[in-house]
Amino acid sequence: MNFIPFGTKRSLRAGLLAALTLFAPIVSFAAEEASSAAAGGHHGVGQTFFWIAIILTVAGIAKMIERKGQPAVLGEILVGVVLGNLALLGIHWFEPMKTDAALKFLAELGVGILLFQIGLESTVGKMRKVGKTAFIVAIAGVVVPFALGYFGSLWLIEGISSYAAIFIGATLTATSVGITARVLKDLGKLQTKESQVILGAAVIDDVLGLIILAVVSALVTTGSVSAGAVSWIIVKAVLFLGGALWAGQLAAPHLSRTFSTIHTGHAMKLITAVVFFLVFAFLAEVVGLAPIVGAFAGGLVLESVHFKGFKDPDLVTDAEEFHETLEKNLDPDLHSTVHETYNSFSEKLTHARDRHVEELVETLGFIFTPIFFVMTGMSVDLATLGNLPILGIALMLTAVAFVGKLVCGLVAEKGMDRWIVGFGMAPRGEVGLIFANIGLALGVVTTSLFSAVVIVVMLTTLMTPPILAMLLRRQRA
Amino acid sequence: MNFIPFGTKRSLRAGLLAALTLFAPIVSFAAEEASSAAAGGHHGVGQTFFWIAIILTVAGIAKMIERKGQPAVLGEILVGVVLGNLALLGIHWFEPMKTDAALKFLAELGVGILLFQIGLESTVGKMRKVGKTAFIVAIAGVVVPFALGYFGSLWLIEGISSYAAIFIGATLTATSVGITARVLKDLGKLQTKESQVILGAAVIDDVLGLIILAVVSALVTTGSVSAGAVSWIIVKAVLFLGGALWAGQLAAPHLSRTFSTIHTGHAMKLITAVVFFLVFAFLAEVVGLAPIVGAFAGGLVLESVHFKGFKDPDLVTDAEEFHETLEKNLDPDLHSTVHETYNSFSEKLTHARDRHVEELVETLGFIFTPIFFVMTGMSVDLATLGNLPILGIALMLTAVAFVGKLVCGLVAEKGMDRWIVGFGMAPRGEVGLIFANIGLALGVVTTSLFSAVVIVVMLTTLMTPPILAMLLRRQRA
Repeated sequence: MNFIPFGTKRSLRAGLLAALTLFAPIVSFAAEEASSAAAGGHHGVGQTFFWIAIILTVAGIAKMIERKGQPAVLGEILVGVVLGNLALLGIHWFEPMKTDAALKFLAELGVGILLFQIGLESTVGKMRKVGKTAFIVAIAGVVVPFALGYFGSLWLIEGISSYAAIFIGATLTATSVGITARVLKDLGKLQTKESQVILGAAVIDDVLGLIILAVVSALVTTGSVSAGAVSWIIVKAVLFLGGALWAGQLAAPHLSRTFSTIHTGHAMKLITAVVFFLVFAFLAEVVGLAPIVGAFAGGLVLESVHFKGFKDPDLVTDAEEFHETLEKNLDPDLHSTVHETYNSFSEKLTHARDRHVEELVETLGFIFTPIFFVMTGMSVDLATLGNLPILGIALMLTAVAFVGKLVCGLVAEKGMDRWIVGFGMAPRGEVGLIFANIGLALGVVTTSLFSAVVIVVMLTTLMTPPILAMLLRRQRA
Repeated sequence: MNFIPFGTKRSLRAGLLAALTLFAPIVSFAAEEASSAAAGGHHGVGQTFFWIAIILTVAGIAKMIERKGQPAVLGEILVGVVLGNLALLGIHWFEPMKTDAALKFLAELGVGILLFQIGLESTVGKMRKVGKTAFIVAIAGVVVPFALGYFGSLWLIEGISSYAAIFIGATLTATSVGITARVLKDLGKLQTKESQVILGAAVIDDVLGLIILAVVSALVTTGSVSAGAVSWIIVKAVLFLGGALWAGQLAAPHLSRTFSTIHTGHAMKLITAVVFFLVFAFLAEVVGLAPIVGAFAGGLVLESVHFKGFKDPDLVTDAEEFHETLEKNLDPDLHSTVHETYNSFSEKLTHARDRHVEELVETLGFIFTPIFFVMTGMSVDLATLGNLPILGIALMLTAVAFVGKLVCGLVAEKGMDRWIVGFGMAPRGEVGLIFANIGLALGVVTTSLFSAVVIVVMLTTLMTPPILAMLLRRQRA
């Protein structure tokens, strides 16, 4: 976060205006091309390139929100909401973005990279330390919202079926870790105990979510639940999480060494890390978990020490040259502090030139992570807020959703900021929508109830970043 | 390029074996999942993640080819050929990769990033210097292969129609710059005059290719050519290349300044560059040129000086801290050389910490560029080589293809290595295939003739990297 001097504000506005003047004709031209291309059934890569350029431009502008002390992710979601709802003002240019398959894929890649990055900043050992607390928080974060959602909707919504109430309860159990993780990262708070608990609990919640989904679906479709099927889901998920973490930790040093034997450059270092990320995300999806859970696990497994075999060859030359200059120019009787300064500085240079794997992965995140959050914002349909009865139900369910997760924060151990843990678990995101969608497909959840759930997801997504930012700032003060 | 000591060879083999042992069950499992998922109509992002992991793994292993002095790109294409033809050995695991839409998109993104990178390493001014030579080379590189292809196929292929001969001629005019550009980059030869001529000529060739395609298609479908339509194509392409380069040069400093006013970090720097790349690639596609031509133009427009507004904020603190240590610890009567060494070292640190835009873009290329070249290799169908009559025609056409482009090297000015220019223009790649495909769609080119053209494209693609590497090494010696 860096603040610009006030004097530059005018030049900033002028620049934005100039950029807009330049961009507007391109956008209108592009929009025409897009619609005519769509009519002709032709869709080149250039079109998606252009959509990415639009996303990156608005995400770039959205970084201005950091000056108000807000995390960049809030800005990205908000510009996404604007872009996705311009159709309400009669501007339909950006509508095709919502269904662009390549964009959707890049968004998934982007949130995967984010969780992998976050995994890289922690270790399996660190997660194990908060394991017990995370487990309790996760269980409470499923049981309480489910109970509140089930009984609350039976009480609040007239004529709701008990199956529909079960689905509402299930929807409210979901935890969408992407948004919270990004807020914690934006504000540099990933290393706190609260953050580790939230991340651990979110992973466990994903496993619990799988089980709930299976149980609820079976209950609604067949009226009974097969213990065998549910056990198999649990076994697969636990095998993956346990097995992948164990095997990954064993294999990581060997694979890294093998790759670094082939080539020691930065490209190979990044490729090694990305292969880990991709394989873990894939395996998670195979066992039914979210790919981002796998991405996070892949990051946990990899540790900096695995990458010590990779060295920039130029760097070695540089360090040698420096050593020579040092020997030539320093008097032997010189104050030893100077020597020390030299040494620490030399180390700094080495450190700076030899780019860490985190730094390489971060560079990928610069481009792909904003795509996910802008697209998340675009999926928010403000028109749903216009239906007052639905909005009323949605607001009540939103309150239930927040209360349910805040209660789960209370079970966090003493000394932690329970509000942060509670609000950190609050965003429902796409995981909640998946539940609601299945309910809709099974004919249990009505369309208007579905719309209400969409609003709940929207509100928990939009409200969490500013609330968390405020809580984290208070904690720092 | 760094060579490993011989002693590590055994451990390398053991490591590869271990990696393979670990990977094989995952691959076979994944393949089963993929086919069952395809049967169910379900296809998650995880599947594509896994394909990317496969590509990056083989691309990583392919880097071993650098020890033989060959460019990495040759290794990537070759492992692609192996992966794409395992079906001949009864292993059908990787067949779905060939039609994965997300992979295709990422491949296009990868080659776009490559050409953008290459554009960044040059400037509009530098290209203008070689403009005349590049123009002559491009014209000769179109006229000679067309004439040779037309008359050659009339003479070589029994019963060929004159329209088909025209299409063969047109196919041989195409220049696919991606492969040559990558070889030049792999071997660190982008800054030579020959390289600049090849890149300039390839861009001009793309414009000429557009015109030829329009003329030939019109001739075959309507029997006549409308001067107006052809003029409009030329006007659009020239307007884009001239206009975008001109407007881009004017706008680049302003847009960079605006973006750096919002935020000065590395993320914003990379976003600014990538937006330029994407918009240029998009505009190129809109006027009918290849997106990579636009990507290259976008790179030409951007210059390091446009990014001086971006600074890592941490860096400033570091430099200040360093200055303080210096003042505190150095005796005033110390030898001045030590001061100088300090200063130059401080500059090096600044340089190292403040990552250049080229370095940030390169990091993206580490992951996405290999996808393009492995996929290029995968599109090579070795089965076509089994048909001897077709192979015969193909070999003759390949000879014609090489001779045609080598002749165009001869018109390069004195003092240049004409062989390098000639072979640099030789790969036909996907551009040639587009011509042949249209001929096939129009019913002018027969299926067997089309297969022959595919082999020509294959051979020019596979033979160019080792030949160019040899020529470039000879030049260096």
